[in-house]
Amino acid sequence: MYTINEHYLKLQGSYLFSTIAKKVSEYQKEHPQAEVIRLGIGDVTQPLVPAIIEALHNAVEEMGTTEGFHGYGPEQGYEFLRECIAREDYQNRGCPISAEEIFISDGAKQDVGNIQEIFGLGNRVAVCDPVYPVYVDTNVMAGRTGEFNVRTGGYEGLIYLKCLEENGFSPRLPGEKPDLIYLCFPNNPTGMAITRTALQEWVDYANQNGSVILYDAAYEAYITEEGIPHSIYECEGARRCAIEFHSFSKNAGFTGLRLGYTVIPRELSCNGVSLHELWNRRHGTKYNGAPYLVQRAGEAVYSSEGKAQLKEQVAYYMENARLIREGLKAAGFTVYGGVNAPYIWLKVPERMSSWEFFDDLLKKAQVVGTPGVGFGQGGEGFFRLTAFGTRENTLKALERIKRFY
Amino acid sequence: MYTINEHYLKLQGSYLFSTIAKKVSEYQKEHPQAEVIRLGIGDVTQPLVPAIIEALHNAVEEMGTTEGFHGYGPEQGYEFLRECIAREDYQNRGCPISAEEIFISDGAKQDVGNIQEIFGLGNRVAVCDPVYPVYVDTNVMAGRTGEFNVRTGGYEGLIYLKCLEENGFSPRLPGEKPDLIYLCFPNNPTGMAITRTALQEWVDYANQNGSVILYDAAYEAYITEEGIPHSIYECEGARRCAIEFHSFSKNAGFTGLRLGYTVIPRELSCNGVSLHELWNRRHGTKYNGAPYLVQRAGEAVYSSEGKAQLKEQVAYYMENARLIREGLKAAGFTVYGGVNAPYIWLKVPERMSSWEFFDDLLKKAQVVGTPGVGFGQGGEGFFRLTAFGTRENTLKALERIKRFY
Repeated sequence: MYTINEHYLKLQGSYLFSTIAKKVSEYQKEHPQAEVIRLGIGDVTQPLVPAIIEALHNAVEEMGTTEGFHGYGPEQGYEFLRECIAREDYQNRGCPISAEEIFISDGAKQDVGNIQEIFGLGNRVAVCDPVYPVYVDTNVMAGRTGEFNVRTGGYEGLIYLKCLEENGFSPRLPGEKPDLIYLCFPNNPTGMAITRTALQEWVDYANQNGSVILYDAAYEAYITEEGIPHSIYECEGARRCAIEFHSFSKNAGFTGLRLGYTVIPRELSCNGVSLHELWNRRHGTKYNGAPYLVQRAGEAVYSSEGKAQLKEQVAYYMENARLIREGLKAAGFTVYGGVNAPYIWLKVPERMSSWEFFDDLLKKAQVVGTPGVGFGQGGEGFFRLTAFGTRENTLKALERIKRFY
Repeated sequence: MYTINEHYLKLQGSYLFSTIAKKVSEYQKEHPQAEVIRLGIGDVTQPLVPAIIEALHNAVEEMGTTEGFHGYGPEQGYEFLRECIAREDYQNRGCPISAEEIFISDGAKQDVGNIQEIFGLGNRVAVCDPVYPVYVDTNVMAGRTGEFNVRTGGYEGLIYLKCLEENGFSPRLPGEKPDLIYLCFPNNPTGMAITRTALQEWVDYANQNGSVILYDAAYEAYITEEGIPHSIYECEGARRCAIEFHSFSKNAGFTGLRLGYTVIPRELSCNGVSLHELWNRRHGTKYNGAPYLVQRAGEAVYSSEGKAQLKEQVAYYMENARLIREGLKAAGFTVYGGVNAPYIWLKVPERMSSWEFFDDLLKKAQVVGTPGVGFGQGGEGFFRLTAFGTRENTLKALERIKRFY
């Protein structure tokens, strides 16, 4: 008789956002009249910009002709897109990353979830707490953790890097040495950024201890302040210890189009085995490349029209972030984030848990957010709101929150 | 110091098709004038049909409007597509599969490669020999095999089901009992089909022994004969033991568009744990759904215009298959396949290995095929040609082959 992967049984409940979706759908069934405003999942609401739509139409047109048809593409992604990324996201910012070090995929979530496969099962994993659940769950599924500990609210064997009010939501270097370190800045869920100086400390730490940093830069486009790194490769020595993940979801609205990329520098190797080669092998064996037309849409993100149009789109969301941040402050809430990231991390009213606040907010204001504890024990007492709604809904939600709290 | 997944080091050379691509590119560098015809990789050449192009344009148009924009979709796929599949590919053929049992993805290769994650590492795996390399390599990477054995030409610990001329390329039930059994019919690479009666024996065997059959039905659209099953669920009891994979690559030319699906019936469970639920958890944690516009293109595959246009496209490739099969026979080759599949499996000239024939064919005729041994030891002495070329190239390739052999 065959057996299943027993590690899956360690997972706690279902995936956070599925749970939220279920709660909201139940509420709506009971209150069909209620106009629910969703500021929970980090999904964008603005349509794709004209430069991207045009690129998509052109690519579709090509696919309908014998000369323009594209079948299987290179698994690592088309050169035309990798060249744009290397130039615009790296070389123009002084980071020496070449096109050849970039792997295109259909989304950062997949890459961030799959990257652990190229590492041994015995590696000690460190994650921030609170944290994007995918880093944790994929390691649980692979068997790199023990059981979930109800008392601590975490998995045995994981190193949790607390991101709390007390440390400005910037994790301290751990005493216990991890092999794999997941970092995401600007951070999901706290919306807080890391300074270049603080990130350099992590890079130095990783190089000293022989750790790899898995750096999720999904929210890089939302950075507004100076001194905040857009890429970990702005730090010295990062090419020897860091893998970086990027998404097109937040900077260009590709949540429904699906595109991302991963950078693995050539220097990164473990006893002479290149991590780039390992990932290349994984990509070639288990993946078949992102759709041609989506890669053409990705290229349009870097055109001059595309850049101008997307700058406006990001500014639109960041104005939402400012409105939420300042509106909540005026209403007496303590709020974090929203300056270099599209997320606002607010302290829930005293004597309430974050799920209680979720239920309360849904019931009173018909506003959906994400309970902080859904991102780990360190998120208890906090609540995430996203700036990805429409202006109208964002203002309406704020008005309702101010009325009830 | 972190460690890598050492199982990757067991993998033999690079992925088959990358090796071929490299050999061809080297040949072309040395012979820039040569007009190379590629009948190697199973990639299609005909453009997307008008019904699909129209659906894509419409979906692109939607994505550019506030009302029509689609962000994150359901991870399992949109209802509109799952309903089409359940009705057209299953219920209309008498297979009781519901939309709710279908998972949409960006390609069968990914699903076929990832499915092993939900099973324990101790499972014994059986694969056909020759075989599509992804089944083997993904299990090697996970650690379900021992080292590669140069003498046997296979990995220790795998059960190889020989598909040879002697048994009509239909594998016999193994004496040693496997837990996971990969089957692909119509078969890649041999191009041979399995009868419903023979497949029923496998289903019965799996149910008796507590095995799961992982059934790859990627070439189903090419079946022309009666009595050949289009789905494993045509067999009694398959809902209790089989997972089925489908691709849109071959029936609709989606190799560059990326779409596939996996069926996991509700009955399939291991000591009370539902495999459907395990895969659902994996899908939700490591995947974010196929692009909205590609799913709309998938829906168009099932429209009446789409069906009519694709029937013609498949017929075009199958006429290629007939021409190759009969042309090679006339030239004195022994050939198999090409009746219910777009692949022709030919016996290479005596005293030649399949890689020698690859090199010889490239040098003499500038025709690229796939050496049988690239699919496993059981493929030695054979060679795969695909019917996915253009008519013009197919005829030209045949002419050259006839001239030199």
